[in-house]
Amino acid sequence: MEKDSEKMAETTTTSNTEEQTNQQERDPESNSLHQPLLKRNRTLSSSPLALVGTKVSYIESLDYEINENDLFKHDWRTRSQAQVLQYVFIKWLLAFLVGLLTGLIATLINLAVENIAGYKLLAVVKYIEKERYMMGFFFMTGVNFILTLVATLLCVFFAPTAAGPGIPEIKAYLNGVDTPNMYGATTMFVKIIGSIGAVAAGLDLGKEGPLVHIGACIASLLGQGGPDNYRIRWKWIRYFNNDRDRRDIITCGASSGVCAAFRAPVGGVLFALEEVATWWRSALLWRTFFSTAVVVVVLRAFMEYCKSGECGLFGEGGLIMFDVSGVSVNYHVVDLIPVTVIGIIGGVLGSLYNYALHKVLRLYNLINEKGKLAKILLSLSVSLFTSACLYGLPFLASCTPCDPSSVNSECPTTGRMGNFKKFNCPKGHYNDLATLLLTTNDDAVRNIFSTNTPSEYRVFSLVIFFILYCILGLFTFGIAIPSGLFLPIILIGSAYGRLLGMAMGPYTTIDQGLFAVLGAASLMAGSMRMTVSLCVIFLELTNNLLLLPITMLVLLISKSVGDCFNPSIYEIILDLKGLPFLEAHPEPWMRNITVGELADIKPPLVTLSGIEKVGRIVEVLRNTTHNAFAIIDTSMVPTVGQMSEVHGLVLRAHLLLVLKKKWFLQERRRTEEWEVREKFTWVDVAERWGTIEEVAVTKEEMEMYVDLHPLTNTTPYTVVETMSVAKALVQFRQVGLRHMLVLPKYHGPSVPPVVGILTRQDLRAHNILSAFPHLEKSHASKKGC
Amino acid sequence: MEKDSEKMAETTTTSNTEEQTNQQERDPESNSLHQPLLKRNRTLSSSPLALVGTKVSYIESLDYEINENDLFKHDWRTRSQAQVLQYVFIKWLLAFLVGLLTGLIATLINLAVENIAGYKLLAVVKYIEKERYMMGFFFMTGVNFILTLVATLLCVFFAPTAAGPGIPEIKAYLNGVDTPNMYGATTMFVKIIGSIGAVAAGLDLGKEGPLVHIGACIASLLGQGGPDNYRIRWKWIRYFNNDRDRRDIITCGASSGVCAAFRAPVGGVLFALEEVATWWRSALLWRTFFSTAVVVVVLRAFMEYCKSGECGLFGEGGLIMFDVSGVSVNYHVVDLIPVTVIGIIGGVLGSLYNYALHKVLRLYNLINEKGKLAKILLSLSVSLFTSACLYGLPFLASCTPCDPSSVNSECPTTGRMGNFKKFNCPKGHYNDLATLLLTTNDDAVRNIFSTNTPSEYRVFSLVIFFILYCILGLFTFGIAIPSGLFLPIILIGSAYGRLLGMAMGPYTTIDQGLFAVLGAASLMAGSMRMTVSLCVIFLELTNNLLLLPITMLVLLISKSVGDCFNPSIYEIILDLKGLPFLEAHPEPWMRNITVGELADIKPPLVTLSGIEKVGRIVEVLRNTTHNAFAIIDTSMVPTVGQMSEVHGLVLRAHLLLVLKKKWFLQERRRTEEWEVREKFTWVDVAERWGTIEEVAVTKEEMEMYVDLHPLTNTTPYTVVETMSVAKALVQFRQVGLRHMLVLPKYHGPSVPPVVGILTRQDLRAHNILSAFPHLEKSHASKKGC
Repeated sequence: MEKDSEKMAETTTTSNTEEQTNQQERDPESNSLHQPLLKRNRTLSSSPLALVGTKVSYIESLDYEINENDLFKHDWRTRSQAQVLQYVFIKWLLAFLVGLLTGLIATLINLAVENIAGYKLLAVVKYIEKERYMMGFFFMTGVNFILTLVATLLCVFFAPTAAGPGIPEIKAYLNGVDTPNMYGATTMFVKIIGSIGAVAAGLDLGKEGPLVHIGACIASLLGQGGPDNYRIRWKWIRYFNNDRDRRDIITCGASSGVCAAFRAPVGGVLFALEEVATWWRSALLWRTFFSTAVVVVVLRAFMEYCKSGECGLFGEGGLIMFDVSGVSVNYHVVDLIPVTVIGIIGGVLGSLYNYALHKVLRLYNLINEKGKLAKILLSLSVSLFTSACLYGLPFLASCTPCDPSSVNSECPTTGRMGNFKKFNCPKGHYNDLATLLLTTNDDAVRNIFSTNTPSEYRVFSLVIFFILYCILGLFTFGIAIPSGLFLPIILIGSAYGRLLGMAMGPYTTIDQGLFAVLGAASLMAGSMRMTVSLCVIFLELTNNLLLLPITMLVLLISKSVGDCFNPSIYEIILDLKGLPFLEAHPEPWMRNITVGELADIKPPLVTLSGIEKVGRIVEVLRNTTHNAFAIIDTSMVPTVGQMSEVHGLVLRAHLLLVLKKKWFLQERRRTEEWEVREKFTWVDVAERWGTIEEVAVTKEEMEMYVDLHPLTNTTPYTVVETMSVAKALVQFRQVGLRHMLVLPKYHGPSVPPVVGILTRQDLRAHNILSAFPHLEKSHASKKGC
Repeated sequence: MEKDSEKMAETTTTSNTEEQTNQQERDPESNSLHQPLLKRNRTLSSSPLALVGTKVSYIESLDYEINENDLFKHDWRTRSQAQVLQYVFIKWLLAFLVGLLTGLIATLINLAVENIAGYKLLAVVKYIEKERYMMGFFFMTGVNFILTLVATLLCVFFAPTAAGPGIPEIKAYLNGVDTPNMYGATTMFVKIIGSIGAVAAGLDLGKEGPLVHIGACIASLLGQGGPDNYRIRWKWIRYFNNDRDRRDIITCGASSGVCAAFRAPVGGVLFALEEVATWWRSALLWRTFFSTAVVVVVLRAFMEYCKSGECGLFGEGGLIMFDVSGVSVNYHVVDLIPVTVIGIIGGVLGSLYNYALHKVLRLYNLINEKGKLAKILLSLSVSLFTSACLYGLPFLASCTPCDPSSVNSECPTTGRMGNFKKFNCPKGHYNDLATLLLTTNDDAVRNIFSTNTPSEYRVFSLVIFFILYCILGLFTFGIAIPSGLFLPIILIGSAYGRLLGMAMGPYTTIDQGLFAVLGAASLMAGSMRMTVSLCVIFLELTNNLLLLPITMLVLLISKSVGDCFNPSIYEIILDLKGLPFLEAHPEPWMRNITVGELADIKPPLVTLSGIEKVGRIVEVLRNTTHNAFAIIDTSMVPTVGQMSEVHGLVLRAHLLLVLKKKWFLQERRRTEEWEVREKFTWVDVAERWGTIEEVAVTKEEMEMYVDLHPLTNTTPYTVVETMSVAKALVQFRQVGLRHMLVLPKYHGPSVPPVVGILTRQDLRAHNILSAFPHLEKSHASKKGC
């Protein structure tokens, strides 16, 4: 199934995200049943395409509403106490398994990266010791080239959706947008191996974003009982075959991923809460917390085990990744000045980074469109450039003599890790730029965060480091490889933070290492615009609680400054990818337009009768792409007149189910409850069935009838047509809808009982503005920070 | 105004919370306009009374919906860029001020408590040194008696709502229930002074809960521009005169309070998020975080200042309250056993505590009903009992010789603070029970958390301590004094935690002090059922990040075990007080009943026409207590028939406004937009006007007309009558409604356009069950953990 849709999308690819809005072919709102009598010059256009990974795919909305039809209600009534307990138990079991597997895979990735990169660096160091510099260069470049090649090939040929961090797509999923092939087994394996290759190749990217995606994949696979083609179809797992429960599990997976990436259990929960999730409730908070607790226990257990040296080059270091607790924090009112300065720089640079990355991603989109070869060549050239810089630039730095007074750290270090790399320097000297560049990214962060080493780095080296990582950070992200944004931003931020610390040296008592931490935090906040979760992640990364108040201030200032210029990096990527994300706040101009006006410019509503002819159902399914249809019953009441009744909404999937199972009636009659229960189980109804093309209906069957009542969701959420779009949007998002019925404000004879059905695409600001451009004026008036 | 309603409530007091449901006088749903033709045997009963503090008051629902009438829309359209910026700026300014003032008041309370309690204890120590034991006893008991008397008198005579922690009422407020006199200036001052008195009197209660309430009071007062009678009526503050903005500010206040109480900025935000708030969004997370950052900066600044010794006995200790970072945490798989044991004990004891406290509070309710004298006597006897125990019990403990090997702490200490109290012991010895009892509660926690002191306490002393605080913890909470629940629970929990640590001593490497911390955490989770926020609060209290994974496990186990027995303590108190809190999850049986059935058993709907006679409005307002009325326009359309239209909802407050301002028309006509804008400003509309009794309308005026269209909220949220109560409740809560229109499912001639209006009380499980008792069966089926 994954293969099929890939092919389909491949043929329709070669379109830029911007061109997508112009594409009208197979618009889900198109409808040739009723030709409108007079041509409207305004229609609500919407695009069902979006960029997932580096691939253009059809996207669908998710349905978080409980579909209260007769089958569901019966199943609900008859669920026994034991079944309810079983359901609760499995929920927790899944949360446990998500944590366990995420922890295991994170350990595996760490193990592989540390060993591959470690042995590579050890070999390079040996060449340099023997002064065979060219051999060293070719060895390092070659190994990195091969690692990048493997990662790219996997990504391009097997799972294009594995490219990038995956966080925007998860964010969209939890908002109600389904992206195909995003959480499959292939994607997960490519993401794991690709991430190992890319990070070990020394590219300027992190494993943090990919780990979040991997966590989500694990959760999704567990929730559906395995990979698409080999799913376990046990009864208990089928309880989770609905969008609401999958949403919850994927939230657990995402926070487990963050937790595994930063070893930050509380930070993981908060990241999911603040940045990723759209809906949240107390029970979910608790289950997510359980998952991350399991992750931490697994990580700790492996660390204990690896301390004995059985994991190769992996195993150094404790649970805290970048420990700066060794330094006591003393700050006074004067220190508010450098803190403010860092915050402002972080905000400005962060928004600048967002802006530049946006431009680069658009450029890369054009390159990626040229085909698979272009994608591969792009990755490989980035890899070559990175290797050349990492190896070559340290030769520019001059050697520094070791400080004999600092006894607590070895200097110079010749091995893989360590803070004072010897590189090409004589005995008793170290090369400070090699300390930062000729190492893994994690170690580079550790070295630049190092405390109580005020004279370790020269300004020149830090400036080179800063510029190099600004360039790499912009040009590495968009290539067809699993890549995270956290680490590149931390590297850039820590560089200018440490530089500022050196400049402020005489005037402050804050350690340079802490300045580097604050710099990293400020750029994160300036680019990603998170506050509480970043604060906790940094607390858990650095284990220095006394730093908390200044971290908070820096984050607040950076975010405020950044918000003055542009939206957060994730919002920019979401927008660039064309994912129809619903924002929490309606735009102000949405108060000036009603849902009635929106429903009015949509193609006429397609309704079905409660007892409908098979032929009509087939016709409707063939000629429209709507996913739900209103069911209207009309009857003549003597002495009163014609009455019509909104019975509810029936899903396309259920109509297809009826056609497939051929549940047809000879005459026009209401069925009994046992009839429908005989034919359909609750489990059938939860499945999503294929397309109308797969269904064969004979000519005689076309003349038969179907009683749609028992399959109709009798309790759809509704709004009256006078409702403003702003308020309707609040309801749509808060309740988690896919379809919203619009009712007429008038009651009386010959008033249709339903005016229209609104979907996610209809309520998007962009689509409304293209139909009602005059609203743009008021739109422009409210902006700014 | 505060006085008035107090008097009013005083007359109707003397009713137990359980009797309230039987009270039918002035039921807000009563309605004598239309006598039902046939007597229904089932009606939706609801009680507008609840216990606020120790006082029975009328409660009202809050209205978080945006009231989109013509005036609002006009104001919205004409708001300039500058006004929008001003609004945003003031929002942030208020968040800043809330943080600043909460920080200042928290420091003031700490200063006062430490000094009063400190000098008291110093004097007691002197009497003991001179072996004048009886004098010491009388002095201590006397001082405690006076302090308690002051706190109780203030609480009973000036602000009964200041009693207790206030957290349940804040939780209800943020859920949409307004409790009168809860956030006034009097309440705040009584709370501040009462809290100082109660804590300094050595009662077993904390200042944490009261600080949360104080934070909310500050926020509310700032938001409305000052105390009720002396409000600043500047234009800018009037933007905040609506329930939504006040809700946001009060959320900031509550988290500032927690932050000030525990010096835990992130914990404060999370506490508000997990436990207190019902609605939450990213922007609010950020503003709340800003408030708590300000609080921390203020607290730190004062601590720096007080280190110089200018604050009397206050000023010792840093930002971390109960620092246990001195001990390195090493744990292995075996340690999971004691951790699990602590978790289970915490869960069982926590739910037992909830159960017992429930019983005690019901008993105390009966006593409190007897009048003011009973309340005062109750407080004073608790004070006497507490003093006697605190002073007398240490004589039972035998003296322990100081450990000469521990050089890092003074032993025995004779002053106010310190870990090894000399009390009645000879030189070189200390009394371990006096160390725990003859000190402030904060210091007691610090002492019992003390690390690297494995042989400090005897089992006997800890057992006495545990039993004493179990008794005090149960019998202190309900008295008419500002009191928090956190500290009593921490004291009980730390006692059994340390005892378990002593028992496990030989088998574990975890320090006894950490066992005490885990015990405290487990009882908190077992009673309050929070996870993430408690975890962060404990992290910030103790500054030991490596403890985090085991803390998480303990919290998860305790909460799970506790949930098997009863709901959280706050839910129990909410229920006991009769506050109509809407739970996040609908009950399962709510799927089996529709909103149509609920609307059916309510008194007939009262509707008004768009252009209505003054007489009819007065009649409706006099005879009903509804807060909103549906506006229905009917018109005859030639050839089609009679059409009716739901124009929207008009609020009682706006009808009163029209009558007060006498905006009457001579003839039945629609008004122009300028006419209404001439008479009413947006600010008038935001105010809540008094009662119908205050309005005088002449007989001629009764015959005139009012055009209600411009004052009608044209976009009320609606549901169709076939909607199940479960789904309607989700919408009601998620969107934050006060009134929900129920529309008919049929469309046709002579179908009324609105079936009914549902409010918070109608959707409460308790009220529905009393009207439909048969639902109870299915209700009972789904319970358990």
